[in-house]
Amino acid sequence: MSLLAQPINCTLKASGESSTDAMIAVMKSASEEKGATVAGTVRAAALDIKPGVTSDEGDGDEWPEVREKILAADILILGTPIWMGSAGSVAKRVMERMDAFLEETDDHGRMPSYGKVAVAAIVGNEDGAHFASAQIFQALNDVGWTIPAVAACYWVGEAMGSTDFKDLEKTPEMVAKTAKMVAANAVHLAGLLKRDAYPG
Amino acid sequence: MSLLAQPINCTLKASGESSTDAMIAVMKSASEEKGATVAGTVRAAALDIKPGVTSDEGDGDEWPEVREKILAADILILGTPIWMGSAGSVAKRVMERMDAFLEETDDHGRMPSYGKVAVAAIVGNEDGAHFASAQIFQALNDVGWTIPAVAACYWVGEAMGSTDFKDLEKTPEMVAKTAKMVAANAVHLAGLLKRDAYPG
Amino acid sequence: MSLLAQPINCTLKASGESSTDAMIAVMKSASEEKGATVAGTVRAAALDIKPGVTSDEGDGDEWPEVREKILAADILILGTPIWMGSAGSVAKRVMERMDAFLEETDDHGRMPSYGKVAVAAIVGNEDGAHFASAQIFQALNDVGWTIPAVAACYWVGEAMGSTDFKDLEKTPEMVAKTAKMVAANAVHLAGLLKRDAYPG
Amino acid sequence: MSLLAQPINCTLKASGESSTDAMIAVMKSASEEKGATVAGTVRAAALDIKPGVTSDEGDGDEWPEVREKILAADILILGTPIWMGSAGSVAKRVMERMDAFLEETDDHGRMPSYGKVAVAAIVGNEDGAHFASAQIFQALNDVGWTIPAVAACYWVGEAMGSTDFKDLEKTPEMVAKTAKMVAANAVHLAGLLKRDAYPG
Repeated sequence: MSLLAQPINCTLKASGESSTDAMIAVMKSASEEKGATVAGTVRAAALDIKPGVTSDEGDGDEWPEVREKILAADILILGTPIWMGSAGSVAKRVMERMDAFLEETDDHGRMPSYGKVAVAAIVGNEDGAHFASAQIFQALNDVGWTIPAVAACYWVGEAMGSTDFKDLEKTPEMVAKTAKMVAANAVHLAGLLKRDAYPG
Repeated sequence: MSLLAQPINCTLKASGESSTDAMIAVMKSASEEKGATVAGTVRAAALDIKPGVTSDEGDGDEWPEVREKILAADILILGTPIWMGSAGSVAKRVMERMDAFLEETDDHGRMPSYGKVAVAAIVGNEDGAHFASAQIFQALNDVGWTIPAVAACYWVGEAMGSTDFKDLEKTPEMVAKTAKMVAANAVHLAGLLKRDAYPG
Repeated sequence: MSLLAQPINCTLKASGESSTDAMIAVMKSASEEKGATVAGTVRAAALDIKPGVTSDEGDGDEWPEVREKILAADILILGTPIWMGSAGSVAKRVMERMDAFLEETDDHGRMPSYGKVAVAAIVGNEDGAHFASAQIFQALNDVGWTIPAVAACYWVGEAMGSTDFKDLEKTPEMVAKTAKMVAANAVHLAGLLKRDAYPG
Repeated sequence: MSLLAQPINCTLKASGESSTDAMIAVMKSASEEKGATVAGTVRAAALDIKPGVTSDEGDGDEWPEVREKILAADILILGTPIWMGSAGSVAKRVMERMDAFLEETDDHGRMPSYGKVAVAAIVGNEDGAHFASAQIFQALNDVGWTIPAVAACYWVGEAMGSTDFKDLEKTPEMVAKTAKMVAANAVHLAGLLKRDAYPG
């Protein structure tokens, strides 16, 4: 079965090198190794994604295209940096826009996200990955996403450190191993749900 | 396919009436309606579950039996009260004991929880359900549980209120509706994973 | 001693009625009753506050004026709506901009926020206030704010409800009582710290 | 002014070496350097602290003595290990017992914790310190504790690491520096509040 994964990079920066991109790259090769196709990464901060909780906030809002890409895929790879010990504001905004799914159910009460799986790719100089994944899993699950076993691939340095993931000489072994596990689980579960949708 | 759900009541009280039990009862009938068998509820506070992160802390530790029940089932219904705005200490202890799963992987790197799904049944007098579900989803997912779409059934009263769920005259309509959705998703997903296990 | 409180409304909406404003109004009168002066509310979504973690992100960034207002005051009243069970993305962005304080210490290692107190004013249709206050207290405390005893005034309706705080006929008694306590504690503590600054 | 700090070690282990103890030791010397007296550490897991939310759960409950020690001090140093990315279950239990403070107010509506400050000493092999401090600050603040600027001293190793804090050859410089700052702020603020209590 052909499965499509859509990464979103929720760095605060509109352009330039990004550790979140580096983590998404790790998840991308792990996902491709498991047979998924990985779409080009959406860089959220480069787009005008308006604050709000509807699917179209009008006036140049670029969320509708992002929404379309997300819903065309089977797997969402939500990439976010850690700021102040938790997920960044851009990731929160992206998730808030999915709040609209609650009102967009089909005849069986199923949100557009039903049958899709979400995983997290999290990086920070230091501590905050578990707080970020807690926020992400709860928020995405509330709006219909399924969370496969071991769904977070993350890296942070030692407490109060300042090393960037993108500047590491090589991908830490534990990160590479976790990425493979996350990707394998996501691909397997997305395949099952694509074949056998939640009945609602 | 025959599916078994195991509820755990993580109230702080060893005996007596419990709002968490009342919420588990709502989840139980919704799960049975979807064809699952629901095992007798484990009341964690009535057992001597030692603090620790291994599967057997010796000396009268009653976790091993609970662990066996959990792993014999396909669906975990983790019931917890809200205390101080988040999941209670008994729920945290129960989850901590599953930390041992990380070391108990099979030849394919799969924890004993792989292929099982977990949902939350949360009650409180007031606010805290989302904080509780964030903690629960992250902790359980880290140790191998899969989280089906919309996996939390909860009730809390108005801010700073003091009504108990068990004293409500009837189950609020939104709770009943959510319970059906949570149960339907859990049963569907547990069935898929039972038939087609994660390859690891 | 003359004390100044600065409210920030972190609703997602640039204009129009706001439940967060209604909660800030409750905190405003409680603060005035305790002798503080309350500055005009900053509506964050009406300004172009760029994503980032420096004190000036250039290019039309309107954070510098907000930063100045915050630092001219003794008390910060951070008002935020709950979205997806936690603080909204606008609140997170506002807090992220204060990350810069970490690099802006004086000769005694004190951030510009040292000696100032922060309280939260949180509203939502339903559950999420404790998750929001946990995020807010941790993030603001990390960047130097002091949190007075009982520092959150909040309201949410019953689980899965949809009533707006601004549409309530009257302020619930518990909210009014809590607001008085929060304001009294904030004013007292801000006064102490203004007279006797942290030595660093 | 003479100030007393009371550390509580919330490790899951009843006895033996503890990284949390090692972190408390760092906070202890920093506090003494600032002129505070530091009481002997309470090891929560070595005591029979019953689950519950009252100040005395009867039947051999050892919380009452702990409660007395906490309330005899001016500063609480809550030490906890990180398990599953957040504060351990013993820390949560200890905090839950303080829920009783809500009902133990004086004639001015002040809880027994009013006028006392709390700081956190957090250690883990890996990520979770910010999630832990968010939980701790919110829970303790709800029941009357004041949180001084920069109130968490923590250490975790690199993501998915397994080094124990107690096995480090020396205290990392950033930890030592943070401990001094946390202690200085706690001592200063506790002194102010001891001289000038919240009026309620």
